[in-house]
Amino acid sequence: MSRNPEKYNKGIDVLNEMVGAPGLQAIDVFQKFYPDFADFLVSFGFGEIYSREALDYKQRETITLTSLISQGAFDQLGFHLNAALNVGMSPKEIVELVIHCAAYVGFPKACSAMAQVMAVFEQRGITEI
Amino acid sequence: MSRNPEKYNKGIDVLNEMVGAPGLQAIDVFQKFYPDFADFLVSFGFGEIYSREALDYKQRETITLTSLISQGAFDQLGFHLNAALNVGMSPKEIVELVIHCAAYVGFPKACSAMAQVMAVFEQRGITEI
Amino acid sequence: MSRNPEKYNKGIDVLNEMVGAPGLQAIDVFQKFYPDFADFLVSFGFGEIYSREALDYKQRETITLTSLISQGAFDQLGFHLNAALNVGMSPKEIVELVIHCAAYVGFPKACSAMAQVMAVFEQRGITEI
Amino acid sequence: MSRNPEKYNKGIDVLNEMVGAPGLQAIDVFQKFYPDFADFLVSFGFGEIYSREALDYKQRETITLTSLISQGAFDQLGFHLNAALNVGMSPKEIVELVIHCAAYVGFPKACSAMAQVMAVFEQRGITEI
Amino acid sequence: MSRNPEKYNKGIDVLNEMVGAPGLQAIDVFQKFYPDFADFLVSFGFGEIYSREALDYKQRETITLTSLISQGAFDQLGFHLNAALNVGMSPKEIVELVIHCAAYVGFPKACSAMAQVMAVFEQRGITEI
Amino acid sequence: MSRNPEKYNKGIDVLNEMVGAPGLQAIDVFQKFYPDFADFLVSFGFGEIYSREALDYKQRETITLTSLISQGAFDQLGFHLNAALNVGMSPKEIVELVIHCAAYVGFPKACSAMAQVMAVFEQRGITEI
Repeated sequence: MSRNPEKYNKGIDVLNEMVGAPGLQAIDVFQKFYPDFADFLVSFGFGEIYSREALDYKQRETITLTSLISQGAFDQLGFHLNAALNVGMSPKEIVELVIHCAAYVGFPKACSAMAQVMAVFEQRGITEI
Repeated sequence: MSRNPEKYNKGIDVLNEMVGAPGLQAIDVFQKFYPDFADFLVSFGFGEIYSREALDYKQRETITLTSLISQGAFDQLGFHLNAALNVGMSPKEIVELVIHCAAYVGFPKACSAMAQVMAVFEQRGITEI
Repeated sequence: MSRNPEKYNKGIDVLNEMVGAPGLQAIDVFQKFYPDFADFLVSFGFGEIYSREALDYKQRETITLTSLISQGAFDQLGFHLNAALNVGMSPKEIVELVIHCAAYVGFPKACSAMAQVMAVFEQRGITEI
Repeated sequence: MSRNPEKYNKGIDVLNEMVGAPGLQAIDVFQKFYPDFADFLVSFGFGEIYSREALDYKQRETITLTSLISQGAFDQLGFHLNAALNVGMSPKEIVELVIHCAAYVGFPKACSAMAQVMAVFEQRGITEI
Repeated sequence: MSRNPEKYNKGIDVLNEMVGAPGLQAIDVFQKFYPDFADFLVSFGFGEIYSREALDYKQRETITLTSLISQGAFDQLGFHLNAALNVGMSPKEIVELVIHCAAYVGFPKACSAMAQVMAVFEQRGITEI
Repeated sequence: MSRNPEKYNKGIDVLNEMVGAPGLQAIDVFQKFYPDFADFLVSFGFGEIYSREALDYKQRETITLTSLISQGAFDQLGFHLNAALNVGMSPKEIVELVIHCAAYVGFPKACSAMAQVMAVFEQRGITEI
């Protein structure tokens, strides 16, 4: 697949804005392994989707967190909890999102999510919610 | 289970605000069948969760729509697409939410969701997105 | 695949016990289309699993109903709601199982399940829960 | 959210009955982090749902185990395997529940569940099934 | 979003090859509703993914059918059952894929899938498997 | 349940062919714990399903890998990534299968899968894709 440099660079910019160095490292690992996969992830996931105008980053992280929790995709949740805080979701908004999910996908998934929220908040020294 | 009238009535108020008569009819069917189930749905789902302050109705419908699409719970999607429009999500924001979900749960679920979005918009005479 | 007549016949007996003619018709459709699939379904699903001693039919329908609701496999739910009633689950136990599931997989799936419970109870003339 | 002390205390009692100190510790962690979440979990999950009369604890753990396995919510499975044993499910009934699930959600999820069953049985010194 | 005409046209070609007019009609409906969504679906789903060299169409339909069945995305299954036949999967291979899925996601999803396989084969006058 | 020695031994042969000693060890653990479960797994999963003629091992591993990724059953993915390589799927075919899945179940599950692909390739000294 020929890369689309414009979309790829846009994606890298978005990732930098949202998560800084850790995010770029995660992509870099995929980039070294199989560039086309990193291409799709960055160009489509972030260069296309995340930079579309109709929804801002905060709305997009609301959607992403909810989707990850609802499908039980917990490997990616820590990354996006950090991104959500970085783009301006408050700790309280994040916790309340998890509580809202409890009604929509049940308490097990909400508990798994809340455990990760606790871990991320602790790493970031967030003590007030 | 003894009902919690305060939370139940709060839930009815929220439902009325969000979807009006159609929503109340849906609950009424459950209420006639097995009141305790309607109680839980209304008191917990809407009286507790939806009326919590940290997230407004628009944010909550963002979460709900995303959760329904991500878990493939399409029976409830039409109800909440209407609620989302009623609480101020724009048609464009809704369509863009579905597109965002395509990256997070794949195109099949996004296509099923988009078909319902099209149907609801048509019923409501929404022609501009 | 060579059929295992002993297990197959055992499976047919179990199906007959649990759902009678409707159940056998459903299998018959698969049997005419591709016998090996009907074989697996009947021999393994019912001849092996359902006839194992450690759990009785009522416990097994508890497990089956819960699994169908939890994975959103609603095409098979009506069949098993009938089976559950036939093997001695009370209407109340069935409704309460759905309510229990609401806490474990969320209200959307519970609502979809409850709608089918209502339909089956109506077809069977069950008015008291 | 104002707490409902009656339901909360009922939930703590149920948790104590079912899992004793380990269960209360798990809740305590959430309670310290964000009390409202612990409230919902305890009041609704255990104070309301688990204490409803129509199904006994053994039936409820049958439902809970099945739901966790069927949705792949394995983080909570160990907790409930212990609870199931405490409320009177025999080791054999638990193992047979997993086997039944294999037919309903496939062997991968059943294998993941069985591995946890083995671990819990070993921790509890259960050698006879 | 600016469209990528090269990828879009490639996607249309792939769709034409795989499903002909019905497939293009499905896209056309989305195209009229919200062009960007059709763009993503066609450019990414078919222009990029389906035309990558390492896997041929038959392998790709094997993956697609399996993914749809495994996630319970049955709205799109009929479309891809037709595509699978068109790109050279034999009726037997398709039925056997469903049987294989029974072991991996359980019999409920396999039964739902088999019912659709039967319907598609009937529409296409396939009587020999 | 009385074992079906013919199917069981066939299943052991298949496992031996596909994964050698590691696969047999995994089964052995289950065999020691609860023989009936190992029986089902080996006899049905491998003795019946995997040895059916219409699809070869390579096609079957394509289905299995896709099903595991699509349902998020990542505990079994490493085992089958090894099996896939052993039965002749090329590293490139495997990586491209994951990319194809990204479009069908979203990037989160694809990323989790790709991380495991990277780990398995590293363990096996695969440097060229």
